[in-house]
Amino acid sequence: MSEYEDRPTFSIPHRAYPMKIALEEAVSTSVFNATETVPAVDAASELPYTRGEYGRDVGRRLTDLDLRVQSMGQAGIALSVVSLTMPGIEGVFDTEAAVDFARRVNDEIYQTYVAGEYADRFRAFACVPMQRPEAAATEIVRAVMELGAVGALVNGYSNVDGANNVQYLDEPQCEPFWAALEALDVPLYLHPRIPVPNQLRAYSGFEFLAGSPWGFGVETATHAVRLMLSGLFDRHPRLKIILGHCGEGLPFSLSRIDARLRHFRGELVGATETLQTYWERNFWVTTAGVFSESTLADTLRSCGSDRVLFSVDYPYESYEEIGTWFDHLELDASTRAKVGWQNAANLLNLAR
Amino acid sequence: MSEYEDRPTFSIPHRAYPMKIALEEAVSTSVFNATETVPAVDAASELPYTRGEYGRDVGRRLTDLDLRVQSMGQAGIALSVVSLTMPGIEGVFDTEAAVDFARRVNDEIYQTYVAGEYADRFRAFACVPMQRPEAAATEIVRAVMELGAVGALVNGYSNVDGANNVQYLDEPQCEPFWAALEALDVPLYLHPRIPVPNQLRAYSGFEFLAGSPWGFGVETATHAVRLMLSGLFDRHPRLKIILGHCGEGLPFSLSRIDARLRHFRGELVGATETLQTYWERNFWVTTAGVFSESTLADTLRSCGSDRVLFSVDYPYESYEEIGTWFDHLELDASTRAKVGWQNAANLLNLAR
Amino acid sequence: MSEYEDRPTFSIPHRAYPMKIALEEAVSTSVFNATETVPAVDAASELPYTRGEYGRDVGRRLTDLDLRVQSMGQAGIALSVVSLTMPGIEGVFDTEAAVDFARRVNDEIYQTYVAGEYADRFRAFACVPMQRPEAAATEIVRAVMELGAVGALVNGYSNVDGANNVQYLDEPQCEPFWAALEALDVPLYLHPRIPVPNQLRAYSGFEFLAGSPWGFGVETATHAVRLMLSGLFDRHPRLKIILGHCGEGLPFSLSRIDARLRHFRGELVGATETLQTYWERNFWVTTAGVFSESTLADTLRSCGSDRVLFSVDYPYESYEEIGTWFDHLELDASTRAKVGWQNAANLLNLAR
Amino acid sequence: MSEYEDRPTFSIPHRAYPMKIALEEAVSTSVFNATETVPAVDAASELPYTRGEYGRDVGRRLTDLDLRVQSMGQAGIALSVVSLTMPGIEGVFDTEAAVDFARRVNDEIYQTYVAGEYADRFRAFACVPMQRPEAAATEIVRAVMELGAVGALVNGYSNVDGANNVQYLDEPQCEPFWAALEALDVPLYLHPRIPVPNQLRAYSGFEFLAGSPWGFGVETATHAVRLMLSGLFDRHPRLKIILGHCGEGLPFSLSRIDARLRHFRGELVGATETLQTYWERNFWVTTAGVFSESTLADTLRSCGSDRVLFSVDYPYESYEEIGTWFDHLELDASTRAKVGWQNAANLLNLAR
Repeated sequence: MSEYEDRPTFSIPHRAYPMKIALEEAVSTSVFNATETVPAVDAASELPYTRGEYGRDVGRRLTDLDLRVQSMGQAGIALSVVSLTMPGIEGVFDTEAAVDFARRVNDEIYQTYVAGEYADRFRAFACVPMQRPEAAATEIVRAVMELGAVGALVNGYSNVDGANNVQYLDEPQCEPFWAALEALDVPLYLHPRIPVPNQLRAYSGFEFLAGSPWGFGVETATHAVRLMLSGLFDRHPRLKIILGHCGEGLPFSLSRIDARLRHFRGELVGATETLQTYWERNFWVTTAGVFSESTLADTLRSCGSDRVLFSVDYPYESYEEIGTWFDHLELDASTRAKVGWQNAANLLNLAR
Repeated sequence: MSEYEDRPTFSIPHRAYPMKIALEEAVSTSVFNATETVPAVDAASELPYTRGEYGRDVGRRLTDLDLRVQSMGQAGIALSVVSLTMPGIEGVFDTEAAVDFARRVNDEIYQTYVAGEYADRFRAFACVPMQRPEAAATEIVRAVMELGAVGALVNGYSNVDGANNVQYLDEPQCEPFWAALEALDVPLYLHPRIPVPNQLRAYSGFEFLAGSPWGFGVETATHAVRLMLSGLFDRHPRLKIILGHCGEGLPFSLSRIDARLRHFRGELVGATETLQTYWERNFWVTTAGVFSESTLADTLRSCGSDRVLFSVDYPYESYEEIGTWFDHLELDASTRAKVGWQNAANLLNLAR
Repeated sequence: MSEYEDRPTFSIPHRAYPMKIALEEAVSTSVFNATETVPAVDAASELPYTRGEYGRDVGRRLTDLDLRVQSMGQAGIALSVVSLTMPGIEGVFDTEAAVDFARRVNDEIYQTYVAGEYADRFRAFACVPMQRPEAAATEIVRAVMELGAVGALVNGYSNVDGANNVQYLDEPQCEPFWAALEALDVPLYLHPRIPVPNQLRAYSGFEFLAGSPWGFGVETATHAVRLMLSGLFDRHPRLKIILGHCGEGLPFSLSRIDARLRHFRGELVGATETLQTYWERNFWVTTAGVFSESTLADTLRSCGSDRVLFSVDYPYESYEEIGTWFDHLELDASTRAKVGWQNAANLLNLAR
Repeated sequence: MSEYEDRPTFSIPHRAYPMKIALEEAVSTSVFNATETVPAVDAASELPYTRGEYGRDVGRRLTDLDLRVQSMGQAGIALSVVSLTMPGIEGVFDTEAAVDFARRVNDEIYQTYVAGEYADRFRAFACVPMQRPEAAATEIVRAVMELGAVGALVNGYSNVDGANNVQYLDEPQCEPFWAALEALDVPLYLHPRIPVPNQLRAYSGFEFLAGSPWGFGVETATHAVRLMLSGLFDRHPRLKIILGHCGEGLPFSLSRIDARLRHFRGELVGATETLQTYWERNFWVTTAGVFSESTLADTLRSCGSDRVLFSVDYPYESYEEIGTWFDHLELDASTRAKVGWQNAANLLNLAR
């Protein structure tokens, strides 16, 4: 019998890496459920992709703790940083309700995950009621100081007093929240949210496009560019923003934007630095939802190896699938350790 | 004296490549001028970045033929494929006027460039009145057969009967135009246009963002994704679409979109193939407006070396600057020739 | 039951590509066997790595036709270009015997493979008796014209009249062979051979190193650099050389050598062009023996996508293993087709 | 006048980076001169490329301190780690003389550079008399503890008692030196030396090839592979080896060697780990002599960004040329700082 039979092959990883940390991992809670709790945006219409078998499977996995821990184990993921799934508190129309929900959701996530049965396997990004930025500031301080939250996660724009009034994070009234975040020295994960009604949905038959990863990426990247151009990082140079999905396309496009902006600096652009400067100083990106080797290579080239972090986007993606993908990647040991777990440990100050 | 002094250095290119062909090169005409001809969209508001010295310089270069030929010579560009600058015919509110303008613009560009004083230095992409697709079909046939146009260029969506009604190229009524284009076997250059009013301009102070390359890229890439998801390339598998700016970010994002869409195929997605399949079969991309070595490398990896074409985006960019950038690139001779001139010659059937 | 179970995963290829062509595929013959036929170099000492179970397995696979065809089928390899395994005719000390053996080996390979039971699955590179270059010229003409050989394969240097006198292909007496090859317009595959006794074996305990892929690569790359510096490609600009193993390390090193040589051109270097020029004009490389995604990416970047060809190095490597590796690669369809089969079909003129 | 005139162009760097540290920077001394001091190998024949104007220029720059500091300033190089140029002490036939020379050379370099007029601009790698490893151990301890040397630099193999007996660093008698080096926790720079007489020089007319960067790279990479296969890094897992020239081609080839060696592990290969494991744990590489953007990109991918260090190879190369090349590279700020200066500062413990 030939030794060929028991040689390693390319369908079996040579090694597994069980220390991985994942950062864009969604949960739902009993006190706040995106599709049932009112008054809030109609999440069912915002999340058309939740229909069908895939949708039901996602729904179950959002709350099944044992299944989550089991899947993490199979995927070699030591720690998940969980957060409330979109649209989250940002979709609550009533500001008072948003403030109240955020607090109760953070408490529940703390009890269930951070201080729960599998406490060593979980940390949390807190939700915050951006409808009232002072309250968001208060809540992130409480969540970090009292509940051990390692940062905040915001699902894009916030509805303020209804579906038709949206607020982006670069608007001046958000200042108290940013000040608190910078003082705490914890990052904000800027998570996608379905784009506000626009051309993506203008033509019948393409509503779906808005909810696809294309719409998510465009909306979130635009939000990030707004933050950069607003001068936010001139006022708060130590802010730390995390983007998922290998940076939502920005690594590919920043140099072109900066090249164009050189013609307008001072006149139309208030920010003092190039976008690339903010990108390299204030942004981290995760691999959530990505399993393309070339997209990761491009991202590493754009961001350097200290600012890219493994993530999955569970339960919208599979822990096992993306974990296996990562373990198969042709990476040097140093870069694998950084992306897989060290960068997250540093950014979130996980090593005590 | 040391020989170091006369050694080649990295600020002097070892070689220049004078055979380059450029494809996204804008002109203005006397019969139709984006900022003066009525009834049309208010181009001044659509093009806020045309203000100031940069704007005046662009305005002059849009029509200065001798300066263009001189700059092409300095940049080693043998041939420019010119086209009417945005918003172009697509911004004309009156359909009859659009039909008439398109015809007269194509005639003028033919006289001035294709059959003009420097006939050996120019070809043209025709403009078409998409407000009436049958007329667009008729005009592209005329322009190709009688005026030697090597394809069409469309500036995104079209205004139909006013500012508030826009039509995208995937809408069913555009079918006659696509049928004509496929029969002629010439490509369509899908050029950016400023996004329709949407979240990019929702917040005061960020109107500029819509007109920046960020807004352009998002609008155009979304338009391209619409074409792919609409099933257009199932009905017309031989259509050839050109995108500028290294593919408007799509090389970075396609794999993720396809990965998400596998959950919804058949149910919400009508197209029969993956986006990657259409991308590799129906799309070509140019370097117009890009001078990042890593963005080009990513694009070559996504598209292969037969579908990437050098371009400049003159006069919004500089022939000399992007031409020099290209001549300095560390490329093997075969890839340089393909991207620099051979792919364009093949796609546009330029070798007689 | 969740749909996760039957989703594609990363350990199962989405598609297989059954049209692959492989070019560095060794056979042994009954008329000439590297370890038994005399008078020849002691192949056993030259091939220390043939010992053990791996060596026995290789020995069996060198001649088992049915097993080869079966493995090709499982690996999606439509066509193998076979050639006599090293050290081959090059190791024969007696020149008359070398001339005779080459002719008889080519006849046997023709009968067994090219015109045999699986004629549609095989082509051949002829062996040639470089010990007498005129005879090598005669034999390659006969093999191509009468036996349908698609080129020649030479295992590095040749022993001439014994173990201690070796001849490299850049030596002047080889000229008649090169002239014939250029006239026939068929390529030479420059295959590795164990380095001549040198520092690799100077220290007891490291003889093995000489026969490892490290020694093979160094010897073959040095041989190729000799060809370039000798001016061979100035005299015969249409010669086509194939190197295996992604170019034996040369893509990584050529730019540095050229940078150094600029100081000595004319004085010590007779060749008129840079090494890079010859590389891009006269050389093709195969993936034989390589299954590193990043080495392939580097090679594509150095050579362009028209000069890289899939290969395996069977039976020293496994058809299935390298075939599966290739089918899993994240490549655009155009580049995959080129590397997988089109470039070989073009170079070897396989399409009738 | 157009604003185009004063826009940044690609022939002018946007920024200069004046903090760079360079590590493979050669000097000659008055007590020991490669071409004049006896008894030693005939350096003139070993260094044929030193002839002509280039050779004279190199000769002058090896000792001109003011010119060196001036060039460093123009190139943005804050600190050079200097070392005795090849063949150095390794080419001394008389062991007693070698021991004596090493000590006196280290003293002179200390006086002239480390404690000299420009003390803040220089550090040194010590030379060691490997002809007597116990003495080499004693000398590296003295150089590090008393003279502030930041490591040792060895020019490949050593002549022991004449031209015909060479010793490689993996030979057992070198053990005391390695033990000292590991205890001191300082790196060894394994610098190229011309290959010992072998096939590179076997054919008249190609002696030059042996002294070209091709021969240097092959010799040095082979030496490094010997170290890995010898089990040295199993016995001394904390040893730190620096290779120049982006790793002498090894990043491109290691995966193939490891793939082959899996068949022979235990039988012929004594080392317990894969070469890739040693590579990622025990090796650092510099850019000395390289100015290819793609070679650097390949190297970063192989080594990760923490193990690649800027260097020049002055005076064989130009500080200004390679410094300018580095300043123009499209690198993210973090990677640029690491490669440019941070990795060197960490490895050499330069930050007090």
